[in-house]
Amino acid sequence: MQNNKVKVGLMGLGTVGTGVVRIVQGHQEDLQKQTGLSIEIAKVLVQNVEKTRSLKLAEGIVTTEAADLFDNPDIDVIVEVIGGIQPAKEYILKALENGKHIVTANKDLMALHGAEILSKAQDRGCDVFYEASVAGGIPILRALVEGFASDRITKMMGIVNGTTNYIMTKMSQEGADYAEVLKEAQALGYAESDPTADVEGHDAARKMAILGTLGFHVDMSLEDVDCKGISKVSSEDIAYAKKLGYEIKLLGIAQRDDDLIEVSVQPTLVHHTHPLASVNGVFNAVYVHGEAVGETMFYGPGAGELPTATAVVSDLVTVVKNMKLGVNGRGSVAPYREKQLKSDEQIVSKYFLRLIVDDKRGVLAQITRILAEHDVSLEQVLQQPYNGGTQSEIILITHHASRKNIFAVREQFAELESIFEVKSLYRVEGGEEK
Amino acid sequence: MQNNKVKVGLMGLGTVGTGVVRIVQGHQEDLQKQTGLSIEIAKVLVQNVEKTRSLKLAEGIVTTEAADLFDNPDIDVIVEVIGGIQPAKEYILKALENGKHIVTANKDLMALHGAEILSKAQDRGCDVFYEASVAGGIPILRALVEGFASDRITKMMGIVNGTTNYIMTKMSQEGADYAEVLKEAQALGYAESDPTADVEGHDAARKMAILGTLGFHVDMSLEDVDCKGISKVSSEDIAYAKKLGYEIKLLGIAQRDDDLIEVSVQPTLVHHTHPLASVNGVFNAVYVHGEAVGETMFYGPGAGELPTATAVVSDLVTVVKNMKLGVNGRGSVAPYREKQLKSDEQIVSKYFLRLIVDDKRGVLAQITRILAEHDVSLEQVLQQPYNGGTQSEIILITHHASRKNIFAVREQFAELESIFEVKSLYRVEGGEEK
Repeated sequence: MQNNKVKVGLMGLGTVGTGVVRIVQGHQEDLQKQTGLSIEIAKVLVQNVEKTRSLKLAEGIVTTEAADLFDNPDIDVIVEVIGGIQPAKEYILKALENGKHIVTANKDLMALHGAEILSKAQDRGCDVFYEASVAGGIPILRALVEGFASDRITKMMGIVNGTTNYIMTKMSQEGADYAEVLKEAQALGYAESDPTADVEGHDAARKMAILGTLGFHVDMSLEDVDCKGISKVSSEDIAYAKKLGYEIKLLGIAQRDDDLIEVSVQPTLVHHTHPLASVNGVFNAVYVHGEAVGETMFYGPGAGELPTATAVVSDLVTVVKNMKLGVNGRGSVAPYREKQLKSDEQIVSKYFLRLIVDDKRGVLAQITRILAEHDVSLEQVLQQPYNGGTQSEIILITHHASRKNIFAVREQFAELESIFEVKSLYRVEGGEEK
Repeated sequence: MQNNKVKVGLMGLGTVGTGVVRIVQGHQEDLQKQTGLSIEIAKVLVQNVEKTRSLKLAEGIVTTEAADLFDNPDIDVIVEVIGGIQPAKEYILKALENGKHIVTANKDLMALHGAEILSKAQDRGCDVFYEASVAGGIPILRALVEGFASDRITKMMGIVNGTTNYIMTKMSQEGADYAEVLKEAQALGYAESDPTADVEGHDAARKMAILGTLGFHVDMSLEDVDCKGISKVSSEDIAYAKKLGYEIKLLGIAQRDDDLIEVSVQPTLVHHTHPLASVNGVFNAVYVHGEAVGETMFYGPGAGELPTATAVVSDLVTVVKNMKLGVNGRGSVAPYREKQLKSDEQIVSKYFLRLIVDDKRGVLAQITRILAEHDVSLEQVLQQPYNGGTQSEIILITHHASRKNIFAVREQFAELESIFEVKSLYRVEGGEEK
């Protein structure tokens, strides 16, 4: 740092990078008042120097050489918004090696290699902050690490992917089909042409791995997250859920009971009285339950140029304040609990089941017998004619049951001659049981 | 600090104080892992030493002498949860004089004398944190100061008083009258026997003064908050609001347009699609709109032993971390903007009006003429028979209008012979106009 000026190397000038430049330029006075230092974007790494941009950048700032940033002795902080694993990881590790602090919005990198990066940072006395990697503009990581520092967090449930929440909301509000809404979302730019990472839950799983690590103080890895997407959710499922008082959302769920942990991403029925049920469209929200604090929720934009850039620049402010105080790299707390994942026997929740059965006497009796044999009792049952009355459709919401038992039930149902099809099986959250 | 042990003097052992002891004792291991130091409640100031308590405290810890805490050289941090202005203020100033850091849950004190206390703290190199003073367990002050450090906050709307939100929720859900629900809330312990501070909005006003100061970086004082309570809100108002798509909530509203600021507490119609509309019961929520981040909301318990204590102990963790780093008293940012309050001409919003008028031809024409003369246009009108058809009731929701104009309209209405009564006038938030 020279002349009370902090020099930033910005890697990436896409949507978020552009937002970062706008905020640093537009809010310069406020940033100075708050940190006592001025912040300058000194170098920007781009793929193509010639590309015309809406931003004004001083002469000579833009470069295609990453080394101009991570090897540049003038640069104090690297802001990485390229995304993806490589070359971002290599650049960040090199920058840390050179004693530069890091702010990143890179969920993939932090979910997969966070421990390695944070450990390198600790060795080098550098800060690494990544608020923007989860739930865009919502300062949820800060809330977990600082706001709830005194509490023991027992559950986090997140709507942490805007694309899928947009799709689920549209399907719910308009009764539309998945394929149709996906196409619309793609046209609007809310979903990518290859939507796999979003709709199959991979993006959400990364964010849940990060939340799990910070909230439970364990070294959660991506493989620990049981992940199921929304591509099989039908408009019928949504309609029935609604009839029973629920919305279907793609939820990330991280739960701790004593020292046992489960983390998953799956389409989940959320009771309409639960604060997550009314989080609609591309908005994100993270519900946090703490032993002492009880129920809280954090709601806001999960993506977008300026919301995500807000989180990035707020992290940058923290780095700069730490520089002013000379305490960089000394604030982070490494995971200190042993990770113990639950078995399927230990994962317990309510479930929603939809079955197509023969319209014959005794079918419901068979179903309830199988449920009883596996210790699964029922909260709600809905039966109605299907396929012109030749079959019946049975919708069940169970009381709390283990995942092991509910899977065994599904298996036995599938073998039962009188059950034509097990259409769907979802986890259920909220409702009368808290 | 001796032997890696931070000694805390706790002032007050009521609800919140008891919660603080429980959390510090119960979460000691986590607190140590996070701060690297152990935290000990060394002295507790109470009014009556003999009182039997549910807590186990070591021999000799409890005292009735405040000086045993603020003059005690062994004590590093004072946690003040007595509440009220005096003697809390005197104790805190003496403690600061002696170089002790302060964590307080005292909204009255911080709203009225925050600037004095923070300035004294700065002189003495001490920390003062007060997360618990606003919205109990919700880490909203941290979100404003750190999470949105990079942004320019333009609007904060808060349901920051659980008692009134409980009353408004019950009135809305059950169509019950104010007096009846208040009595019920008192029986349940949600409202005090003298409910004035809550129902007249004074409590909320204090919290809004604190939010305004931190969110807008101005030195907001309590007199700047225009304050109106809920005691005049009728079940009819709520029913009509609902008919038009709104809930009535006691909202704190702090808004900034360029450098002009308004802060108020008032019963407000909130459109049912707005995230604040579904915040029910004793829960609190703060909606924050930032120039860059857009819409966010923070939701959680606004009071209670453990939620409030969580906020207090998380502040304590921050103090302890700062002690470990040797940076106490160096993180806070004093207000740096000049306070410019809006005039009634500059305060602009939608309004709800309910009038009882003679059921005569031409009345509506008179009404609309007066509105037009004051540049007030209408978004919704509802007219229906009143008093057995001898009169009419007219409900209006206006487009955006200045407070000056809407007050002038109300005055003219009151003088109009054909208008029997202007029953109610409320601000309106949310709905189609964003």
